[in-house]
Amino acid sequence: MPELLFPLDSNKKFTEQEKIGHNRWHPDIPAAVTVKPGDSFRVHCREWFDGAIHNDDSADDILNAPLTTVHTLSGPFAVEGAKPGDLLVVDILDLGPIPQEDSGPLAGQGWGYTGIFPRDNGGGFLTDQFPDAYKAVWDFAGQTATSRHVPHVKFTGIVHPGLMGTAPSHALLGKWNTREAALIATDPDRVPPLALPPEPRDAILGSLSGADFDRVAAEAARTAPPRENGGNQDIKNLTKGSRVFYPVFVDGANLSVGDLHFSQGDGEITFCGAIEMGGFIDLRVDIIKGGMETYGVSENAIFMPGNTDPQYSEWLAFSGTSVTLDGEQRYLDSQLAYQRACLHAIDYLTKFGYSPEQAYLLLGAAPIEGRLSGVVDIPNSCATVYLPTAIFDFPIAPSADGPVRIDPGIGAPHSAR
Amino acid sequence: MPELLFPLDSNKKFTEQEKIGHNRWHPDIPAAVTVKPGDSFRVHCREWFDGAIHNDDSADDILNAPLTTVHTLSGPFAVEGAKPGDLLVVDILDLGPIPQEDSGPLAGQGWGYTGIFPRDNGGGFLTDQFPDAYKAVWDFAGQTATSRHVPHVKFTGIVHPGLMGTAPSHALLGKWNTREAALIATDPDRVPPLALPPEPRDAILGSLSGADFDRVAAEAARTAPPRENGGNQDIKNLTKGSRVFYPVFVDGANLSVGDLHFSQGDGEITFCGAIEMGGFIDLRVDIIKGGMETYGVSENAIFMPGNTDPQYSEWLAFSGTSVTLDGEQRYLDSQLAYQRACLHAIDYLTKFGYSPEQAYLLLGAAPIEGRLSGVVDIPNSCATVYLPTAIFDFPIAPSADGPVRIDPGIGAPHSAR
Amino acid sequence: MPELLFPLDSNKKFTEQEKIGHNRWHPDIPAAVTVKPGDSFRVHCREWFDGAIHNDDSADDILNAPLTTVHTLSGPFAVEGAKPGDLLVVDILDLGPIPQEDSGPLAGQGWGYTGIFPRDNGGGFLTDQFPDAYKAVWDFAGQTATSRHVPHVKFTGIVHPGLMGTAPSHALLGKWNTREAALIATDPDRVPPLALPPEPRDAILGSLSGADFDRVAAEAARTAPPRENGGNQDIKNLTKGSRVFYPVFVDGANLSVGDLHFSQGDGEITFCGAIEMGGFIDLRVDIIKGGMETYGVSENAIFMPGNTDPQYSEWLAFSGTSVTLDGEQRYLDSQLAYQRACLHAIDYLTKFGYSPEQAYLLLGAAPIEGRLSGVVDIPNSCATVYLPTAIFDFPIAPSADGPVRIDPGIGAPHSAR
Amino acid sequence: MPELLFPLDSNKKFTEQEKIGHNRWHPDIPAAVTVKPGDSFRVHCREWFDGAIHNDDSADDILNAPLTTVHTLSGPFAVEGAKPGDLLVVDILDLGPIPQEDSGPLAGQGWGYTGIFPRDNGGGFLTDQFPDAYKAVWDFAGQTATSRHVPHVKFTGIVHPGLMGTAPSHALLGKWNTREAALIATDPDRVPPLALPPEPRDAILGSLSGADFDRVAAEAARTAPPRENGGNQDIKNLTKGSRVFYPVFVDGANLSVGDLHFSQGDGEITFCGAIEMGGFIDLRVDIIKGGMETYGVSENAIFMPGNTDPQYSEWLAFSGTSVTLDGEQRYLDSQLAYQRACLHAIDYLTKFGYSPEQAYLLLGAAPIEGRLSGVVDIPNSCATVYLPTAIFDFPIAPSADGPVRIDPGIGAPHSAR
Repeated sequence: MPELLFPLDSNKKFTEQEKIGHNRWHPDIPAAVTVKPGDSFRVHCREWFDGAIHNDDSADDILNAPLTTVHTLSGPFAVEGAKPGDLLVVDILDLGPIPQEDSGPLAGQGWGYTGIFPRDNGGGFLTDQFPDAYKAVWDFAGQTATSRHVPHVKFTGIVHPGLMGTAPSHALLGKWNTREAALIATDPDRVPPLALPPEPRDAILGSLSGADFDRVAAEAARTAPPRENGGNQDIKNLTKGSRVFYPVFVDGANLSVGDLHFSQGDGEITFCGAIEMGGFIDLRVDIIKGGMETYGVSENAIFMPGNTDPQYSEWLAFSGTSVTLDGEQRYLDSQLAYQRACLHAIDYLTKFGYSPEQAYLLLGAAPIEGRLSGVVDIPNSCATVYLPTAIFDFPIAPSADGPVRIDPGIGAPHSAR
Repeated sequence: MPELLFPLDSNKKFTEQEKIGHNRWHPDIPAAVTVKPGDSFRVHCREWFDGAIHNDDSADDILNAPLTTVHTLSGPFAVEGAKPGDLLVVDILDLGPIPQEDSGPLAGQGWGYTGIFPRDNGGGFLTDQFPDAYKAVWDFAGQTATSRHVPHVKFTGIVHPGLMGTAPSHALLGKWNTREAALIATDPDRVPPLALPPEPRDAILGSLSGADFDRVAAEAARTAPPRENGGNQDIKNLTKGSRVFYPVFVDGANLSVGDLHFSQGDGEITFCGAIEMGGFIDLRVDIIKGGMETYGVSENAIFMPGNTDPQYSEWLAFSGTSVTLDGEQRYLDSQLAYQRACLHAIDYLTKFGYSPEQAYLLLGAAPIEGRLSGVVDIPNSCATVYLPTAIFDFPIAPSADGPVRIDPGIGAPHSAR
Repeated sequence: MPELLFPLDSNKKFTEQEKIGHNRWHPDIPAAVTVKPGDSFRVHCREWFDGAIHNDDSADDILNAPLTTVHTLSGPFAVEGAKPGDLLVVDILDLGPIPQEDSGPLAGQGWGYTGIFPRDNGGGFLTDQFPDAYKAVWDFAGQTATSRHVPHVKFTGIVHPGLMGTAPSHALLGKWNTREAALIATDPDRVPPLALPPEPRDAILGSLSGADFDRVAAEAARTAPPRENGGNQDIKNLTKGSRVFYPVFVDGANLSVGDLHFSQGDGEITFCGAIEMGGFIDLRVDIIKGGMETYGVSENAIFMPGNTDPQYSEWLAFSGTSVTLDGEQRYLDSQLAYQRACLHAIDYLTKFGYSPEQAYLLLGAAPIEGRLSGVVDIPNSCATVYLPTAIFDFPIAPSADGPVRIDPGIGAPHSAR
Repeated sequence: MPELLFPLDSNKKFTEQEKIGHNRWHPDIPAAVTVKPGDSFRVHCREWFDGAIHNDDSADDILNAPLTTVHTLSGPFAVEGAKPGDLLVVDILDLGPIPQEDSGPLAGQGWGYTGIFPRDNGGGFLTDQFPDAYKAVWDFAGQTATSRHVPHVKFTGIVHPGLMGTAPSHALLGKWNTREAALIATDPDRVPPLALPPEPRDAILGSLSGADFDRVAAEAARTAPPRENGGNQDIKNLTKGSRVFYPVFVDGANLSVGDLHFSQGDGEITFCGAIEMGGFIDLRVDIIKGGMETYGVSENAIFMPGNTDPQYSEWLAFSGTSVTLDGEQRYLDSQLAYQRACLHAIDYLTKFGYSPEQAYLLLGAAPIEGRLSGVVDIPNSCATVYLPTAIFDFPIAPSADGPVRIDPGIGAPHSAR
């Protein structure tokens, strides 16, 4: 194992560790560690809610999840010699749940969770259809996941970091705050909100303190969205063996990482759709000097995925177009088309005995593919979602015999105000 | 080869054939052929513009492409016993370019084309950046495609029908016309238009004639968009060996098919992004009685893709978020995020010597993957696009050495008014 | 389709065609066609027994199959400028069953066959266990095969030419005849024989006649074994899109091809284990001057397989070692180890209701993988055989519930003297 | 991580650990640990030579490797309730190098080795061509391996246990000893030997001592070959996620495991062809009562491989037939055919600048495929070996330009007496 440069003790809170990470983006958060180009190192990562979500059969923790506290990120890691305009090369050598800890109260200790967040606490992709809080706990056995809350499925996880990115420059941060404020201003009271403005409450800013802390806390960007620096991209294909190229906006690049996922379907559709966990990630970093200009990568990561994804060869797929459930025609809206495709998949799965929430949680967590199949055929986009049939322990394809009925078990824990 | 039930003579226009197909959707277009459940049969398909696009080095044909004439569909094929509420099972046994004809003036005779349509004649996914007409001609050698207009790439095509679907009922057709008219009404003079209303000019309606023809031509839906009946879904994964389940809305189901593609990337991003061709398709049909209710499939196809797609194991990927090129923040807009990801890929490819148009045409035609990676992280969706590195005959990954420079050759033919 | 340079009429015998092929290897068989480097062309191929095996429920045709008549090869194709010492580059652009003919008496007209050859007429890999003649007829639907003789399985074929190669020089032919005669001499009366000496009876030698015919017929090598020139390698991975590099031993290279297979498992274990068929193959040829020395390829083909094999992701595998069924320990004998692995697979399949012969025929025909897993652990080699589980329409994995019992149907036709 | 039931301290010899494993097969070696059906547990494994091979640039350790000491196995693990006639189900949940130890003197601490064993100390697959001792040290970075001794290649390892199996019964052990002694007797002085008889010297037998130790040491079977109980099968496809079914010959089954490989090509052709390492393996066990009879599995493991193998999509393949290098024709000898195919691959690689030994070491270690392509075409078997082209950092396919020349670096360490 490479040298452990960012350790986390599972028995302590994220803010009580030897090194303190952060949960906001800001150029003035000091590097926690400095490494050299070519270095390999291990990083521990805390699950995004720092232990607020439990391995139990209640969804109260999801109902009341403290969204101002996320994401608990490890870093920043400064890379010697990195300058704005460079590309930071990050190899994901390995990653997984918390090493050597197979049970315990912290997600990543042999288990993880997927949540449907309620409309008034985050919401999600299908919040109009699923306004309440639900949860599924997944048990890990090697690379495979199963859940007492979603029985009759078992799949190999597609393990990846949900969030990794470089620090923004002051200029870039300013741009984010301006444009997101403008969006919020169009409907400031919307539930769920259109975007999340800076929020000093619960900010964690590494080693900052005093006036610097207060200033940065007031300015720093929230970590929910992906942006020019990478960030919370939730790209399920950033598996072991991937190489990622990030634009560098500040001296040292200041890479941070967290929000590890044991598995996730394309879209992470339940908001916390991945199987969330703490764990470790082994990285190697390097620099391509001046690479942003050389390769035309001024924003957003480019990457080369690893080659050990779980392989499936038979899929059941659903399609959707950009017509709302109410029958309104929208113009080339792939977001909507994917919602409709996912709703079709959910409807289908309920015919076998699953509750809609179980089906929704499954689509968030299993390694499903979500494709932008057609984006030009006015006025309808066509999006498609593909479920690997082998993850079910019963026949899932349509046939003249009709669907078998499974026992849905105890179902997904539910909590409502 | 299964019995040829819908022959096309390559030397004759689509309207001069033994059996006349159609280019509009309407329940009253009579079945051209009737088959039984369990039957296998061969269908010839004409390329979607019926020969208006040529194997030459001009894009004038794209500039002036007759959009009112598309898509030239083969069918309808009535299936005995199929009733509204059933699911029509369609197996794609085989498909390919025009058999036994390796050269000739018709796309599918050993070659195909990809077009960037000009803003005032269809437009496309990136029409703001690419308002003019361009074309690429692709030559087929077995399963592989190469182009004099986009040199240094060669790939195995992912052959599929761009368009297949069942006939709408009168009620469903009415719903389409109403909702699309409502959308058009929000900006009736938009260029390109928001949607395409019924258009009697150039309508082809099978064996209909006289007053029936006129009535149906005035009501029938255009074939551009995918809808509840399947239609122009442009799903690149509907390859040989796929099984598709279509909802049935009229007696006999009345299946039609056309718009064959030698290859296409996810999204078919240049509008006519696929490699368009005429050819053949071998189908087998069956019925699941009452399947729409049994399986909850009231609209849009569900399907199981075949297992002989071209396999690639190394990919270079680009990401985008829902911020416009002008810096405006949009709310969870995957359509925009995919545009931004594709623009990033295009920018990248130009660093190697391609023109932006060559890069755009390539992304439309090659078997690229387009994924909805993150759809919930307010306010940014994250979409990703994956290019197989093996299709290039030069190293395409970023490195400290910088990009090699290729000779872009004669480039993509361009025509502007 | 590329120009058809070697046509075959399905209604005529192989010896009554416009161009006559050959069924022996000899440098003096004249080229049937001459092509240029870079040329693409289509070749028709006759099934290896020229129609002697029928689509029926008897195995009498296998029992009495005329082994002296095989293989009916198309060619030779001379390539202008090819000289001994060059490498001949052969691209397999496309191949498949007889085009446009979906039914008829000739294998390749919508069907093919697999045979277990009796001990006294060819034998096979497991002839000690399976000394009698059996047959299975397979029906083609697009890319998939099913059989009334082996029910409950369906698979995508891995289509390839069983036999392709260049002509030997006189010196090379002499070497073959000498070494094979030496082997035969060690046990000249063995049944089945150790090797097949030259046999003038039933020889077909292209356009040769008279004294030349007689001389060549007496010297020419049989086509059963693969040798330095490629030949009957039965490599299932030579699928569409493959590029093969053959050593050139005579001026013009004189390439010949035949013995097309709709599918085959590794080893082609029932002797005629593949699904035999006639059909077409589209080739493109080129030359690497002096390539044999440059690349150290003095014998046997090297090749790069295509990338559209049928994909399977779940396998049930069996292992075997080099101990005979009688318990005798052999030294590192992978041939024996693979026999034992295949016998284990057959034993297993009989627990579900198949007859041993059905299981054996299935292993020959389906796209199974056969690997040399361990070849050094004295005294036991370890060979393994992998069956894709998805080809069965019932659960094939071991479980605590025990095997389901399928209805084996009419079984495999059997004939014995 | 599952409970660690068999710990090893990297600072102590295999015989000085808390629990002592074994390096021979015998029914009377007592179980080291007892588990229940359904249990998951972690096992540490020592590299097969217990640290005798070093991370240096000499091959003296290979030259003098103590073959009587291998393989250092962890176990036996008794499973409660397992009886002869049952099938033991073993799930490989996870495995890898020594956790949390990235550097150190023990293979598995961030590195591993491949050796060519000299003719007089083990030999190997191609010992006639490679009679001397050579070594390659491989460095691990996450899942990838590189070597200073074989430069210009980098690959994702296909991690697996080389050796796993159940204890033999007394009757089975007797059968082994009898048949192997009979083989040895046919040429008792052969170098390398035909097989390895029981050898009390260096025997490790768990907790046995005194007269029992002496008796068992004299009778116990060596661990080199795979046999009916599984054992040293060296099946590279037993990756994470695999499920293996072993026959049970003694009460408790008494499973043992060791000889972990970071990677290996099919055949493990250099004898110690895999990348050898110590590490951990997480197993879950279960029982199918009476499964040997129910499923016809009386000997040799059957298994279902995992689905996260490294994926490669472009291969360069070599073929060989059963003719010796001296030109002698052998009868259907796949062992020889695979030797010839591997020698062809080695010859080819030397044209790019590798030494033959570097090429041989590479074929042993990289995830190459070795297939029994044709086993029936008298008198020649055809075996094929497939190299993934992506593991090379230079173009490896043949072309008209001829091979590039790489710098072979310091080469593979060599030692000769």
